[in-house]
Amino acid sequence: MSAHSLDEHLDAHRRRVEDALAAALPDAEPAAGCPERLASAMRYSVLGGGKRLRPVLCLMAAEACGAGWSDAMAPAVALELVHAYSLIHDDLPAMDDDDLRRGRPTCHKAFDEATAILAGDGLLTLAFGLVAGGVKPAESAVECVRLLAEAAGPSGMVGGQMADLQAEERSAEGADGSAAELEAIHRRKTGALLRAPLEMGAVVAGAPAEERRALAAYGRAVGLAFQIVDDLLDVVGEEAKLGKRVGKDSGHGKWTYPRFLGVEGSRARARRSADEAVAALAPLGGRGDRLRELALALLEREY
Amino acid sequence: MSAHSLDEHLDAHRRRVEDALAAALPDAEPAAGCPERLASAMRYSVLGGGKRLRPVLCLMAAEACGAGWSDAMAPAVALELVHAYSLIHDDLPAMDDDDLRRGRPTCHKAFDEATAILAGDGLLTLAFGLVAGGVKPAESAVECVRLLAEAAGPSGMVGGQMADLQAEERSAEGADGSAAELEAIHRRKTGALLRAPLEMGAVVAGAPAEERRALAAYGRAVGLAFQIVDDLLDVVGEEAKLGKRVGKDSGHGKWTYPRFLGVEGSRARARRSADEAVAALAPLGGRGDRLRELALALLEREY
Repeated sequence: MSAHSLDEHLDAHRRRVEDALAAALPDAEPAAGCPERLASAMRYSVLGGGKRLRPVLCLMAAEACGAGWSDAMAPAVALELVHAYSLIHDDLPAMDDDDLRRGRPTCHKAFDEATAILAGDGLLTLAFGLVAGGVKPAESAVECVRLLAEAAGPSGMVGGQMADLQAEERSAEGADGSAAELEAIHRRKTGALLRAPLEMGAVVAGAPAEERRALAAYGRAVGLAFQIVDDLLDVVGEEAKLGKRVGKDSGHGKWTYPRFLGVEGSRARARRSADEAVAALAPLGGRGDRLRELALALLEREY
Repeated sequence: MSAHSLDEHLDAHRRRVEDALAAALPDAEPAAGCPERLASAMRYSVLGGGKRLRPVLCLMAAEACGAGWSDAMAPAVALELVHAYSLIHDDLPAMDDDDLRRGRPTCHKAFDEATAILAGDGLLTLAFGLVAGGVKPAESAVECVRLLAEAAGPSGMVGGQMADLQAEERSAEGADGSAAELEAIHRRKTGALLRAPLEMGAVVAGAPAEERRALAAYGRAVGLAFQIVDDLLDVVGEEAKLGKRVGKDSGHGKWTYPRFLGVEGSRARARRSADEAVAALAPLGGRGDRLRELALALLEREY
């Protein structure tokens, strides 16, 4: 491992990703093929900040398999575009109906609903074009397209969002849920697109099957830990706001891990997932150290 | 050319496409990875009829380049899924706000808006996965993904829809348009996804560059003819309904070819485009006869 700290490593990757994102998006120039309003909405939504966790995971996976990070930049950018599209569509009035995202108006508030729908559609489409145009050899490009489509598609992220909306309907009608049901939703809604970067990084690095499987297992475990910590942060935020404990006994609200497992139970579950992620990397030896560090750091969620 | 008529040829291809579409879509079974409601909405929107013009063009292009139609089935299905997704999203209240499509409730009416947005997202994503998984060799798959992304993306179909919405805003404010502006919109909104099948058919057939260029030129010209005839049919329908002439002098309504060129001028323009399409196929010799027939038949628009 280099002398740089994990933070420095992540920051360097994030800056590279920011540059690549800005270069990949259409310019907001009327003369270009992409209408100005559409280009502006796409840039607004993608370049408006974010942890860039998915692309950074993809770059780090390629490095862990002995390749350079630049080999993984095309799929890394594509993953972030798909993530950004999913946020735009999830924020729409017909879905989660959110007005704010990262402290700024959501895309349909800053522009309008039609533009937001099209900006999401455009980002998703562009993502596949970037993978096809930016990964060599062709066999690796095809495999990355396949992985991205599977992770983002009806049995992955889109299916998870549908299942989540249906769970909320059932919850609003007073139905009970379980941690297992919640996990089944998140495995698709957020887990699939957190696992894909690891596998795509292995593919562009031409890694042997054992390393690819190790990274996929890592991605699955890290994705779960990430989601549980996300839920915990929501609860902590809500507790601070309400001035009282929430969680297991908070009644028929949104399905969260703290609701089903309690705060301490959720912390333990996240910790166990992070440990599983670390253990999964055994086949990579020392090349997996950065990813091991990251899994444990995610528990603290500075990332 | 075989002894079968063009109609028989098209019908046979349509039946093959219908079967392949039904097989490619997720089953509406709760046990599968795709939630039942999402699978139902996707199947409802894709399997609800349609001319299947894009997939049929793709199969015929492969045949014109000496390949079998089955070599082109994966991109053909993908093209129809992308077409179906674009109709679902265009019909949404925030876009064209249509309640009916092919005489049936639109997806957001038959299900709900959130499901319709996700069904469109799912179809678009699935389309790319099908191309990656169904085209050999990998170089051809990559090229088909690239062509599909370009045709459907921000500088293609999605950009065209954005430009169309903006033109309608300007038109509602009383702005004049021109046939040239209208053509620039349609070249992206509908033209790109009518040209792509021809190029994709050439790619899966491993056709030489000259044949691919010929088919792309054919696709461009046929797409324009198709759009003009579409506009003419609308006008004829409107005239029948209103009992009076509409067209060039119909004031500040929707931008159409008859509005800018008049009915006769539009007919002449469509005819010229079909002739250009026929001429473009010269490098294919007799193998292009079916496509030549189709270009002329589109003028009558039984297809």
